[in-house]
Amino acid sequence: MVQLYDDERLDYLLADEKMKIIQSPTAFAFSLDAVLLAHFASIPIKRGKILDLCTGNGVIPLLLVKRTKAHITGVEIQERIYDMARRNMELNKVTDQVSVIHGDLKEMLPVLGHSTFDAVTCNPPYFKTPKATEYNENEYLTIARHEVYCTLEDVVKACKLHVRPGGKVAIVHRPGRLVDIIALFRKYRLEPKRIRFVYPKQGKEANMLLIEGIRDGKPDLKILPPLYIYQEDGTYTKEAEEIIYG
Amino acid sequence: MVQLYDDERLDYLLADEKMKIIQSPTAFAFSLDAVLLAHFASIPIKRGKILDLCTGNGVIPLLLVKRTKAHITGVEIQERIYDMARRNMELNKVTDQVSVIHGDLKEMLPVLGHSTFDAVTCNPPYFKTPKATEYNENEYLTIARHEVYCTLEDVVKACKLHVRPGGKVAIVHRPGRLVDIIALFRKYRLEPKRIRFVYPKQGKEANMLLIEGIRDGKPDLKILPPLYIYQEDGTYTKEAEEIIYG
Repeated sequence: MVQLYDDERLDYLLADEKMKIIQSPTAFAFSLDAVLLAHFASIPIKRGKILDLCTGNGVIPLLLVKRTKAHITGVEIQERIYDMARRNMELNKVTDQVSVIHGDLKEMLPVLGHSTFDAVTCNPPYFKTPKATEYNENEYLTIARHEVYCTLEDVVKACKLHVRPGGKVAIVHRPGRLVDIIALFRKYRLEPKRIRFVYPKQGKEANMLLIEGIRDGKPDLKILPPLYIYQEDGTYTKEAEEIIYG
Repeated sequence: MVQLYDDERLDYLLADEKMKIIQSPTAFAFSLDAVLLAHFASIPIKRGKILDLCTGNGVIPLLLVKRTKAHITGVEIQERIYDMARRNMELNKVTDQVSVIHGDLKEMLPVLGHSTFDAVTCNPPYFKTPKATEYNENEYLTIARHEVYCTLEDVVKACKLHVRPGGKVAIVHRPGRLVDIIALFRKYRLEPKRIRFVYPKQGKEANMLLIEGIRDGKPDLKILPPLYIYQEDGTYTKEAEEIIYG
């Protein structure tokens, strides 16, 4: 067993009883967004290298391990949360396949090199500027959710720097930032190829988007069928259930 | 009655028996795209000025007349099709409310002035370069469908030129051009505010998109609920039927 600190708890990762994950309600707990991104991203299956930026407690690498034999590198800026990710890899005995690095995605060039990954995933902070009260209340969550240490442009730039030409970059974000995301993908020559909008239920506006671009790809965007999370009665749709519980 | 030429025919415009529209299978016949755009666009209702670029046979002005008392100007570059639009306004006795102009949207500044419209709609040509064979077979359709006389950038630039600050620009296009559209909207300061993707049926990729931007607007994009056109059995969905037949 690994050590748990403070209010950390051990949760099941999906319905898979073999995998568990250390979470903390006050430091970092993974969200549906990460689960959907891990399912959406195109990744190499048999070999290759995958990078997960803003990895948090390592939930995306853990989910990807179920789909691929490629080596996965996770980068997390907050030391306490990086340490959760590191212990999560030990706990699940995937330290051979997954490396977790404590560092700033803006400064990874000397460590990771450029154009070295086949695929990059990122579930970045969504919100622009934290209110002073939010910042004071919980620094861990504020940094995970707000563009405190990295802006959306920093994220897209880092994705482009580390992915190889022809490699794929998948991120999850809010629809309100679609225009910024597309403008930045174009700026950094990550041509958007697939977008899937996620709707809480039928008849509602989208509240999440999954986007994948190819470095130096040709324009040819597909808008995938919508993904609905809940049915009218509040239970998961069949598709959401399959993605979440595997 | 108005004069019909060549293979022109008189169709009902929607289920409304009062409105008819001159169409031609070889020159111009309106599509579902125009109907959806006329329904999607935010327009002033009681007064104001609306511009419809690439108006074709004037289908969008005719549909908008049912929703608004604002004055509508349609611009069409092809003389034969402009003439269909002109006759369509006569036929439906809306020449007081709708003006149709024969002209090139790139050269409308002296005629229309800048920043003079509250709303602009456009169902532009979708395809980049026509094949030589397509061009030779039917010049009318080729010009209506391909970027022969105007590129997407020409369209967005003209929309921006003629709409007032705070006014709205709505266009219909293919999802494959979303990245270009968003990049051009940003370039010409038409901030995208609402996007609706149109899916032929559940489980399929989107094949049409409706987008509306506000000149000099603040970033705040909403992705509206998907619009499905057909049910599994091939009949219109309830929502499509309501939009199409009013």
